[in-house]
Amino acid sequence: MPLDLKQFIRSVQDFPQAGILFRDITPLLGNGEAFQSALSRFQELLKDEKIDKVVGIESRGFIFGAPLAERLGVGFAMARKAGKLPADKISVEYDLEYGTNIIEMHSDSITKGERIFIIDDVLATGGTANATITLVEQLGGEVLGLAFLIELKFLEGRKLLPGRAVYNLIEY
Amino acid sequence: MPLDLKQFIRSVQDFPQAGILFRDITPLLGNGEAFQSALSRFQELLKDEKIDKVVGIESRGFIFGAPLAERLGVGFAMARKAGKLPADKISVEYDLEYGTNIIEMHSDSITKGERIFIIDDVLATGGTANATITLVEQLGGEVLGLAFLIELKFLEGRKLLPGRAVYNLIEY
Repeated sequence: MPLDLKQFIRSVQDFPQAGILFRDITPLLGNGEAFQSALSRFQELLKDEKIDKVVGIESRGFIFGAPLAERLGVGFAMARKAGKLPADKISVEYDLEYGTNIIEMHSDSITKGERIFIIDDVLATGGTANATITLVEQLGGEVLGLAFLIELKFLEGRKLLPGRAVYNLIEY
Repeated sequence: MPLDLKQFIRSVQDFPQAGILFRDITPLLGNGEAFQSALSRFQELLKDEKIDKVVGIESRGFIFGAPLAERLGVGFAMARKAGKLPADKISVEYDLEYGTNIIEMHSDSITKGERIFIIDDVLATGGTANATITLVEQLGGEVLGLAFLIELKFLEGRKLLPGRAVYNLIEY
């Protein structure tokens, strides 16, 4: 029987603020079998996609995106928080519930025409994912889709990602 | 002939501040062959170590630590910047050139007696690496050693890591 990945997700009340139930991936990462199983399921979901590069969203998206790129034998590109990237870059500002956030990519981290899959640990409101699509497309990449370890369905993040292929391994 | 990984490191002047020559891993990550080659060399360096878990230091340490854990079939634990971890955790404050920094781990991310390898992208002054050793040992882990993609030898980070096994793939 396949591993139930959900049993490796810990729920923490009131983080990062009161009223939020945070889904913590620490137990999943700490179990080698569960971590490998998650990566195998990502790989299985994407097996018919012709992916040239994986984009991981800082920072927990790196934990799944980098090994997935490695398994697929393709390159990996970072979508990072503001101020972290040293070379020529592009930025997108996007709305949070309160205030705004900025996400950035190096201008040469995507080559025009590359087929891209975007990976992150959690799909919540979709703001960060949508901003990352904007960055990839501004650099001439073709976004084949997005895959998340966890999707918080009640936040309806897919509404910000219309027409996109969106995968998850665990839903709440 | 093996790939020369150094050719995939970009040097950026005056980042994050004037006078600093920043070693940027973007080209290495973007090349699937170079990224796989780096991971294979880490794996070869560590092939005689009996590793129970890999600890990656946020956030570029996740990019090498997570796939290495995956290749080794062991768990992965995060050493994170302050305020990111939701559950019971321990913290260490350490000195930077100007000011201090804090790094944290979840208390249950290491099990007492686990044999740990610590991975990061760059060994500079060694402050973050040394603080991560402190966290792992406070949680009862045994630090077998540390491996870095890049070591900036002129900063003498090894002086903060006496008696430790320290590996790198690229030196400046």
